[in-house]
Amino acid sequence: MTQHAPLSHPAQIAASPATLFARTPNLAEPDTSLLRASLRNYFIETFDRYESLFDCLAEDDAAWVTKPIALRHPLIFYFGHTATFFVNKLMLTRMIDTRIDQHMESIFAVGVDEMSWDDLDDSHYDWPGAARVRAYRNQVRALVLGLIDHAPLQSPIHWQSPWWAIIMGIEHERIHLETSSVLIRQHALRHVRAVAEWAPRPDDGRPAPENTLLPVPAGVVRIGKSFDGPQYGWDNEYGAHEAQVEPFEASRYLVSNHEFLAFVEAGGYRNQRDWTEEGRKWLAYSQAEHPTFWVKKTQGWFLRLMTEEVPMPWSWPVEVNYLEAKAFCNWKAAETGQPVRLPTEDEWYRLYDHTGRTDPGASPCDANLHLDHGASSCPVDEYAHGEFFDVVGNVWQWTETPTYPFDGFDVHPIYDDFTTPTFDGQHNLIKGGSWISCGNEAVRASRYAFRRHFFQHAGLRYVVSHAPAEAPAAYYETDRLLSEYAEFHYGDTYFDVPNFPRTLAQLAIQAMGEHPCRLALDLGCASGRATFELARTFERVTGVDFSARFINQGVQLMQSGQLRYTLTDEGDLVSYKTRTLAELNLRDTLPRVEFFQGDACNLKPQFTGYDLVLAANLIDRLYDPARFLDTIHERIVAGGLLVIASPYTWLEEHTPHSAWIGGIKKDGESWTTLDGLHAHLSPHFTPVGEPLDVPFVIRETRRKFQHTLSQLTLWRRH
Amino acid sequence: MTQHAPLSHPAQIAASPATLFARTPNLAEPDTSLLRASLRNYFIETFDRYESLFDCLAEDDAAWVTKPIALRHPLIFYFGHTATFFVNKLMLTRMIDTRIDQHMESIFAVGVDEMSWDDLDDSHYDWPGAARVRAYRNQVRALVLGLIDHAPLQSPIHWQSPWWAIIMGIEHERIHLETSSVLIRQHALRHVRAVAEWAPRPDDGRPAPENTLLPVPAGVVRIGKSFDGPQYGWDNEYGAHEAQVEPFEASRYLVSNHEFLAFVEAGGYRNQRDWTEEGRKWLAYSQAEHPTFWVKKTQGWFLRLMTEEVPMPWSWPVEVNYLEAKAFCNWKAAETGQPVRLPTEDEWYRLYDHTGRTDPGASPCDANLHLDHGASSCPVDEYAHGEFFDVVGNVWQWTETPTYPFDGFDVHPIYDDFTTPTFDGQHNLIKGGSWISCGNEAVRASRYAFRRHFFQHAGLRYVVSHAPAEAPAAYYETDRLLSEYAEFHYGDTYFDVPNFPRTLAQLAIQAMGEHPCRLALDLGCASGRATFELARTFERVTGVDFSARFINQGVQLMQSGQLRYTLTDEGDLVSYKTRTLAELNLRDTLPRVEFFQGDACNLKPQFTGYDLVLAANLIDRLYDPARFLDTIHERIVAGGLLVIASPYTWLEEHTPHSAWIGGIKKDGESWTTLDGLHAHLSPHFTPVGEPLDVPFVIRETRRKFQHTLSQLTLWRRH
Repeated sequence: MTQHAPLSHPAQIAASPATLFARTPNLAEPDTSLLRASLRNYFIETFDRYESLFDCLAEDDAAWVTKPIALRHPLIFYFGHTATFFVNKLMLTRMIDTRIDQHMESIFAVGVDEMSWDDLDDSHYDWPGAARVRAYRNQVRALVLGLIDHAPLQSPIHWQSPWWAIIMGIEHERIHLETSSVLIRQHALRHVRAVAEWAPRPDDGRPAPENTLLPVPAGVVRIGKSFDGPQYGWDNEYGAHEAQVEPFEASRYLVSNHEFLAFVEAGGYRNQRDWTEEGRKWLAYSQAEHPTFWVKKTQGWFLRLMTEEVPMPWSWPVEVNYLEAKAFCNWKAAETGQPVRLPTEDEWYRLYDHTGRTDPGASPCDANLHLDHGASSCPVDEYAHGEFFDVVGNVWQWTETPTYPFDGFDVHPIYDDFTTPTFDGQHNLIKGGSWISCGNEAVRASRYAFRRHFFQHAGLRYVVSHAPAEAPAAYYETDRLLSEYAEFHYGDTYFDVPNFPRTLAQLAIQAMGEHPCRLALDLGCASGRATFELARTFERVTGVDFSARFINQGVQLMQSGQLRYTLTDEGDLVSYKTRTLAELNLRDTLPRVEFFQGDACNLKPQFTGYDLVLAANLIDRLYDPARFLDTIHERIVAGGLLVIASPYTWLEEHTPHSAWIGGIKKDGESWTTLDGLHAHLSPHFTPVGEPLDVPFVIRETRRKFQHTLSQLTLWRRH
Repeated sequence: MTQHAPLSHPAQIAASPATLFARTPNLAEPDTSLLRASLRNYFIETFDRYESLFDCLAEDDAAWVTKPIALRHPLIFYFGHTATFFVNKLMLTRMIDTRIDQHMESIFAVGVDEMSWDDLDDSHYDWPGAARVRAYRNQVRALVLGLIDHAPLQSPIHWQSPWWAIIMGIEHERIHLETSSVLIRQHALRHVRAVAEWAPRPDDGRPAPENTLLPVPAGVVRIGKSFDGPQYGWDNEYGAHEAQVEPFEASRYLVSNHEFLAFVEAGGYRNQRDWTEEGRKWLAYSQAEHPTFWVKKTQGWFLRLMTEEVPMPWSWPVEVNYLEAKAFCNWKAAETGQPVRLPTEDEWYRLYDHTGRTDPGASPCDANLHLDHGASSCPVDEYAHGEFFDVVGNVWQWTETPTYPFDGFDVHPIYDDFTTPTFDGQHNLIKGGSWISCGNEAVRASRYAFRRHFFQHAGLRYVVSHAPAEAPAAYYETDRLLSEYAEFHYGDTYFDVPNFPRTLAQLAIQAMGEHPCRLALDLGCASGRATFELARTFERVTGVDFSARFINQGVQLMQSGQLRYTLTDEGDLVSYKTRTLAELNLRDTLPRVEFFQGDACNLKPQFTGYDLVLAANLIDRLYDPARFLDTIHERIVAGGLLVIASPYTWLEEHTPHSAWIGGIKKDGESWTTLDGLHAHLSPHFTPVGEPLDVPFVIRETRRKFQHTLSQLTLWRRH
């Protein structure tokens, strides 16, 4: 196996340590002078290299202000944007308190998030000229360098440090170095020009190797970094994820243009069979007949690079979006009868670990990565990693895995929407980096995800595995009511009011006395906290709620051990929360808990024989509370307990006025709900003790809360 | 002046102390044996007399179950109702805990409140027979007597005592003694029969006296009893009312049938001119052409009494409703050119005091009152009281005054809807009592009010006065939002959170420092508490709110010194609240306070030159908060203070999303409302100190509250 095939051409950028593009720095460097120097270098190299990329644009204004694709801004925006980003984030960490240019910083603030292929960006801007933006960039450069040289600095620079804004700004610009290179590649040829610094590697004309499958043994994958790590990371890299990966086979090489041609020629873009539903929609919209950078000419296939079209380099990796990659795999599976698919993120890490990779260091990469070996792809059989090739580098590799947060995920306070909007099951992870992936993009820990129809310098490696590629839970509850209840049940304490469902469970357990604690029913369980709390003591606890959406929160906690939701802070602004059973010390209760959708006024026969029924904040939400009260004794064993808690907030939207069991005038007299409870329950229950007001708080915004007293009554079944 | 004209006929009920119908008892009798004996007698006499009234019904069932008028129940209901009332109230004070007869007590519980002449009672009941009801009454009689004889008793019996239910039950039955006598009088003649005990006084045929006007001098009237008084009272009698009454003239006699005939013959019932708008509507509905108890026969006018029609006794008082009485006065005013009207309640008390009346005592009344002198009206010139006749007794006298609560009014916990539903400006007070008014009905303190179209044994005395008959504030705010705000500003403390508007006013005054406290503007003043609080220190304070309904609360406090509102306890059940400026020690601020309706985003030019502008919980309720923030400096003197408090609860229903000044993503970054405040205010203001969260609580029900933190920021005008 060739470890490092000799380059058959002079590298455009010398692969010597002296000129290597700076690696993401060690932020724990204890010597602050060295730390400042390292940051200064990292900033300047990035800022310079980014500006040099725009030398690829033709010299007329149209190159700057014409959109390469309808869905994104023109390149002038991206030229200014990475500078403005520094100012915005420095304002947020209060390293500065005055803007450089209000106008520039307004128009360069927000990129277009390509959420769908038909979200056209209709913004009209009166873009400033490139020279003006360059002058603005120079102001930002001076500002940042001044800070790097003179601002108070404590080592290490960590997640909470104000300096995080600086390293975030640099890494952010490195991302745009890559995405802007894609936009240049999508720009009309008349808008671009060849420059030596960004010249592609020439195709040596070698044929693509025949791809084969090689085994990857089973193993455990551990991902996720800690918040005090020495390198910069985006929010989605933090926390912890551990997975047992089943053995699988993976293609030795990335799929080459040659290998992909067979799919195209087999009518892959015309045959709906191999495409997912989303893929078919995209196909109908895009009218694609081949990969986006392929150009069909009378003289044959060509490939569009950044500034030129070249005869198709068949040995280079094909570049496709996820939908095309997935269709290719499905076609391949149909052809071979094998379970061919893209790797999961876990499988990619397993392959990475199996082949013994490490992050880019002081030497040139043994991969087409980090601009160490030129400004384009290269043949798929050039960089061997163990038995495989291009485990990292050359082009990104699409995975089956929609991005998701690790346990312990948190948003960064100055960039709370970097990842969270992508936790929607529609952004798939790409791994390994491309020839232009630098800094954080080029390390094992990095996790980037894009819409599945999106183009990057990205292709695929396929795997063969009988293990299904399951999508991890990435869902953040954003429905206001469900989120408020998630926080109510599992979240923080407000106004020193103890957790309500837990308090009720404790009071109920206490009231059980000598009666055995076998079966408990948490009726109207909502998000399910009391169900779990009762299961600390009861042998089996059933949570039942009318709303499947609420039940789903309990089920999600059972399945994943965690619940994620957004909380409204103020207006549109939200916080992101994750709560786990582990931190509430409730993990042990899992085998004793179950959730069902059900109607308290019309319970299925199976729900019976309970030693305890808890009905918390339920009766004033039922459509027929009398029916519930008049029949609930049938579900409780003799000597068992019925616990009712309610603020008696009768509302016609939940309970017809004629069905209110109290809070009414009855035969001319005031008739409270407590009167109603006694009237309905006394045939089968004896009241235990005195009613007790138990407070609860539901957070609506950072400053607005419902603060309620729920009256608790206990009833012993005759 | 004849003090007491000799009776020209034998009184049907001997007017000797031994057989006088028992007077309302002294509840402070210290000897509990005597107290029990007095209650026993009062109960038995009332219960017996009430049953005897029903002897006037014909012996067939139809007399019991046919409705005398469409708007009320048949008499069988009233026969059972007064007994059930005892049971219901005894249950509420827990003197008993078990009902006598669930069924009886359900059908006899609620009378029909005749709210409008076209509210037909469409209830269909399967009424029990009279014998069954009589048997039930006997059970109740035994129960009450058992309690009177044996239940623990402490003297005095007061408002809070469980025994209040007993005396309330007796006085309640005395009211129905009178109203049932009216129903019998409205019953078809075939359903009634003459009985000796209820025989009317025969008409002696005397002519009606010529009415004249006599002066009543000016004077102060004091009404209202204290909660520890020795006699039973209904809730509306408690508290205190004091008024200076201007001199006026009053008719010497009640208006007789003879005097009223002139109005009838002058076409009074056909001439719209003299009727109020309500009167004209009633006239159109009822098609009345003369007083309701007048019967026109070929042989001339007759008068319907309880069980017979008699040739018109012209010297007896006419019986009319308020609308007829008012039309008569208007006609009289037009005829005479004098300001003729009905007396106000205050004027009636002035006349009462002027003529030196006292409550019925151990001797027969010197008035046709309390059944002391027979079971019908008598001539209007029979009972002289000073220069006047019938200041009390004979028939009730309509007043111009809609009933209203005195200062210190409170509802009784076991009968919270005795009076409160009549605080609607549509129930006018009647005074003085009629020949059948007994017990509490017959004392100076009593205050009964009925719908203006309602018939009782009631007529009128007219007065001539240039003083307008002003309707006192009887309004209870029942709109949920306005009531919640009234409580928020002037009510109780919840969760130990100090009064919010007062706290803000204190913080604002404190922040004024050395700056003079001349003019202050409370913008978005809502119910106005902070306006009053600021006026403790400022020379002049203007409260401005967009909502005239809110402004009205401040205005009402300025005008009457008090605010009345209902608070939702649970479901339909409410509490009644009265708050006064006096109890908040804010009376002295009155001369320095004013309220205006106004728009904070478009303030009229007059609102300027302020040393302080307070905008509490305002900015997130404005349709254009930026406009407010960008212009408010124009209203504040140099060195003056702007105080903003807000929970930043942005809602599209108040503020279009595009107008939110914070709680948004701005240029891609989180932009809080505090950021927005700084951006908008910094051109003209300097922030003072740090933002401070000030909590407030708004009560929604007895158990449900909004608990909110309002962020306070202070801004000094450059």
